[in-house]
Amino acid sequence: MTSSSDRPATAPDARLIARFAAIVGADHAITDTSEQAPFLREWRDLYVGRTPLIVKPGSTEEVSRLLALANAEGVGVVAQGGNTGLVGGQIPSAAGTEIVLSLARMNRIRSVDPAGSTITVEAGVTLADAQHAARAAGRLFPLSLASEGSATIGGCLATNAGGVAVLSYGTARALTSGLEVVLADGRVWDGLKALKKDNTGYDLRDLFIGSEGTLGIITAATLRLHPEPQERATAFAALPNLDALLPFFRLAETHAGSALTAFEFMSGLLLAFVTRHIPGTRRPLAGEAPWFVLLEISGPQGNASALRDSLLARAAEEGLITDTAVAASLQQAADLWRLREAASEAQKGEGGSIKHDISVPVSRILDFLVSAGDAVERICPGARPVPFGHFGDGNVHYNISQPPGMAREAFLALWDTMARAVHDVVVSLGGSISAEHGIGRLKRDELVRVKSPVEIDLMRRIKTALDPKGILNPGKLLEL
Amino acid sequence: MTSSSDRPATAPDARLIARFAAIVGADHAITDTSEQAPFLREWRDLYVGRTPLIVKPGSTEEVSRLLALANAEGVGVVAQGGNTGLVGGQIPSAAGTEIVLSLARMNRIRSVDPAGSTITVEAGVTLADAQHAARAAGRLFPLSLASEGSATIGGCLATNAGGVAVLSYGTARALTSGLEVVLADGRVWDGLKALKKDNTGYDLRDLFIGSEGTLGIITAATLRLHPEPQERATAFAALPNLDALLPFFRLAETHAGSALTAFEFMSGLLLAFVTRHIPGTRRPLAGEAPWFVLLEISGPQGNASALRDSLLARAAEEGLITDTAVAASLQQAADLWRLREAASEAQKGEGGSIKHDISVPVSRILDFLVSAGDAVERICPGARPVPFGHFGDGNVHYNISQPPGMAREAFLALWDTMARAVHDVVVSLGGSISAEHGIGRLKRDELVRVKSPVEIDLMRRIKTALDPKGILNPGKLLEL
Repeated sequence: MTSSSDRPATAPDARLIARFAAIVGADHAITDTSEQAPFLREWRDLYVGRTPLIVKPGSTEEVSRLLALANAEGVGVVAQGGNTGLVGGQIPSAAGTEIVLSLARMNRIRSVDPAGSTITVEAGVTLADAQHAARAAGRLFPLSLASEGSATIGGCLATNAGGVAVLSYGTARALTSGLEVVLADGRVWDGLKALKKDNTGYDLRDLFIGSEGTLGIITAATLRLHPEPQERATAFAALPNLDALLPFFRLAETHAGSALTAFEFMSGLLLAFVTRHIPGTRRPLAGEAPWFVLLEISGPQGNASALRDSLLARAAEEGLITDTAVAASLQQAADLWRLREAASEAQKGEGGSIKHDISVPVSRILDFLVSAGDAVERICPGARPVPFGHFGDGNVHYNISQPPGMAREAFLALWDTMARAVHDVVVSLGGSISAEHGIGRLKRDELVRVKSPVEIDLMRRIKTALDPKGILNPGKLLEL
Repeated sequence: MTSSSDRPATAPDARLIARFAAIVGADHAITDTSEQAPFLREWRDLYVGRTPLIVKPGSTEEVSRLLALANAEGVGVVAQGGNTGLVGGQIPSAAGTEIVLSLARMNRIRSVDPAGSTITVEAGVTLADAQHAARAAGRLFPLSLASEGSATIGGCLATNAGGVAVLSYGTARALTSGLEVVLADGRVWDGLKALKKDNTGYDLRDLFIGSEGTLGIITAATLRLHPEPQERATAFAALPNLDALLPFFRLAETHAGSALTAFEFMSGLLLAFVTRHIPGTRRPLAGEAPWFVLLEISGPQGNASALRDSLLARAAEEGLITDTAVAASLQQAADLWRLREAASEAQKGEGGSIKHDISVPVSRILDFLVSAGDAVERICPGARPVPFGHFGDGNVHYNISQPPGMAREAFLALWDTMARAVHDVVVSLGGSISAEHGIGRLKRDELVRVKSPVEIDLMRRIKTALDPKGILNPGKLLEL
C-alpha cells in the first residue's frame, strides 16, 4: 500500500516545468497566474488551488508523454475538463505541487457512425457539442445536464454524470461503449470499441468511468446513440400528499414502460420559490399542492401524447393526482421544464442553502424524506427542506433553505453537522451519499466514514495496482 | 506479477481435505468419484476435470471460511453454479489439484421489493427461479437464455450472461444493482445496494461481474426488475437480401424506440435445417428467402400490436421485407420463437458444426458475414455458414455446418484454424471474440492473441491486486 508520504509533495523545479512545457509547446503551457486563474477556481468558489503549470495537450500522444514524464519524476497531475465539477475533483491542491492537465484542446469529433449508432469524440468535446453532432446525424445522445454547454465528455465520464434522462437511458456509464485512456505511466489503452456485447475479460471501461481521474486520464470515448423520439409528451401534475408519489411513479412506469423518459419531483414550497424568484416563470396549476411531478413520455408520433393522456386519466381516477397541466406545444413543454431546471437557482432568493446529492432505493424515498426532515429540524428548527430530483432514480437533491430571518453564515456553519445527519439517514436506508456528483475532495472523508473497510481496501488495492506512484489526482476520492 | 510457478500446483493432502470438509459438514463434501462426475464434466464433453473435493457451502460465512483456508494454504478454488457454461470456466483442471466450490445449496430468495423493483437472491438460485419470484411479485426479470432452468444467478453474473432480451434490457451487468462477494482471502464485500445511481468510488460491482470467478466468488446479488409488459407483439419477416437487414433494424428501432424488445435474425438455410430436423416446427411463410427476422415489440395493451403492424406496413412499402407472419395468439408467438430457439439443436442433424460467439458494431455485421464467409470457403470449400443471433446487439452466433458428405471428424479438426480466421475478421472490424459466453479455458489463448499487451497487463495487475496468491479459478480467463 502506498503511504501518504509516498504521494508527490514537492513542486517540480523550473527545469522540470520546462520539460513538461516543451511537450505541448509554449503556446499551450500556462504559468502566468492571471491566465491560470479560471482553471484554479471552482465555479461556486468552494475550492481554489495553485499550480506551477497548466498544460493543454493537443493529442493523445502528448498526454502520453506528459504522464510518462510525470510518473518518472513523481509529479502529481490533475486532469480537468470544463471545470464544472461539483465536488472539487478538478482543482489542484493549494500546496501548488501538482500540474493541471486541461483536455480543452482535445475537442475533435473523431467519427460518427449513424448506421452503427455510435460517435467517437475526444475528451475535451463539450456535452452540448456531442449532442449536436449526434443530432446532425439524425440520432440522439441523451445525456443532459444543466452545465452541458461547458461540461466535457471526459469530465462527464470521469464522474459518471447523471442528469435528467437517466430514467430511460442510464448514466454516462450506460451510454459509453468504449474508451481511450492514458495510464499513469504514459501507456495508452485503446479500448475504443463500438460494441453492445463484449465478454472478453475484466470490465476496464467501467473501472475508469467514475474514477475521477485517479486511475488514468480518459482522452477519447465511443458513445452510444439512440433514435431521436418522434414525439415528447410533457405534463406537470399536482399530488395530494407524499404517499401518492411512489404509486404514481409505479403506475406511470407500468403504463408507459420504457417510454417514460422523465419523472422529476419537487416540493410545493420549492415551486413557490421558483415562481417567486425566477423571472418569466408562473404556476402552471391554479391550486396549491404539497408535491408536484414533471413527467415526459417519448415515442412514435401521436403515441406518446395518447399514452400520457391515458396515464393522467387513470392516475386521477385512482386519486394519485389532483390536477394536471399538459404541454400543447414545444414552448409550453419548455416552460414546464424551466420550472424544474430553475430549482437550484431559485433557492438563492431564500438565503443560505445546504445541499445534498443522495440516492436511496426508490421504495425508501418516503422514509428518507420523513427521517431526514426530522434530523434537519432537530439541528436547525425552522430550516426549510426543499427536496427535488430524479424520483425514478431514487436520486433526491435534498437541499435545505435557511429559516427566514436567520443569519446566512450562521446557517451555513451547520453544513457539516447537517450533512453527517442526512448521510446517516441515507446509510441506514442502504443509500448513497453521492448519487451523481462523485466524491472529489468534498466527500472524501465522508466516504471513509460510510463505506466498509473492506471496500476502501479494495479501492486502495486497485489504485495502487494502476497508479503505483500515486501521481493521478492525488488526494481526490481516496486518501492513500 | 505472479509467475506461473506461483500458482497452486500440488493437491491438498488428506488432512487439509478434512479441514475443508469440516467447514461444510460431511454431507456437503463430495470425494466419491462417481458422485463427483456430474460436476466435473462440461455438458458438451469439451472439458472433463478432476478434483480431490467438491464442497457445497450453505452460507456466505462458510464460503468465507473455505476461501480463508484455501488462501492460507495456497489451494486453487473453482466456483461452479449450474455447470451450463460454454467455455469450460466452471470445470477444474485435469491435474486434480483444485477444489470445486458449488454454490448449489445457496439457493434462497433473500428478499423481494416490488415497490423498489428489486430482488435479492443467493448465487445458487436458478435463473428460472429468479424469473418466477419476480413474476410472483408482479414484475419482470428479463434475463432469459436457453439454459435458464439450470443456469444460476452466480454463473450468469460471473459470465455477464446475455440472451434474447439484451436489446432492450441489457446484459446481466445492466440488470444488477449490487453484489455480495467473498474475496480471495475470505473477507466479505457487502455491496448489496438496491440503487440506480451511486457515484461513490470505483465500480467494483462491474469489475466482479464477468470476471469468471477469478477475482472473487459472488454469493448473492440484488437484481433490477422491470414492469411486466402488458402486451408482446411478435412477427416473423422474410427479407429479400442481406442488404435489407440493417435498414430494417434501424427502421424498427426508430419506429418502436425502446419498445423493440427483440430483433433476432437467421439465414434461410438455417430455417430449412430447423423445419427439417426439429419435430413440430413448420415454415411460417410460404416462400423461400435468404434471411429471416423474428421481432418482438412490447408495451401497453393494444399499443404493441399497433406499432408492430404499422412497422411491417412501412417496411414492406420500402421493400425491406417481402413477406410476414404475425402471431395472433400466445401459442403462435411461442411457435415463432421455437424456430429461433431450435437454431443450435437443428444443426446437429447436418453433421459437425463449428461455432463462434462474436460481436461487431451493428453497422459492420454485413461486412463480417461477407468476409467471414470468404475465409470459411477458403479453409473448407463447401462448408455451410448458418449465421443467426441478436442482430441489434451486433452479436452473431457464426456457426458453420460441415459440407454434406464430408467426414464429421475431419471437419471438426479444422476448428482452431477456422476460429483463428473468423476471429481475425472480427478483430479487423473492431469486434469481440466472445460476445456473451466469456473466455474460460476455450478462448484464453486467443484472448492474448487478440488483445493488446497493455490491456492484458492491466488485467493481470488487477488480478494480482485482488488475488495475490492466484487461488481463484487458476488458469481461467488469464494465464498468469
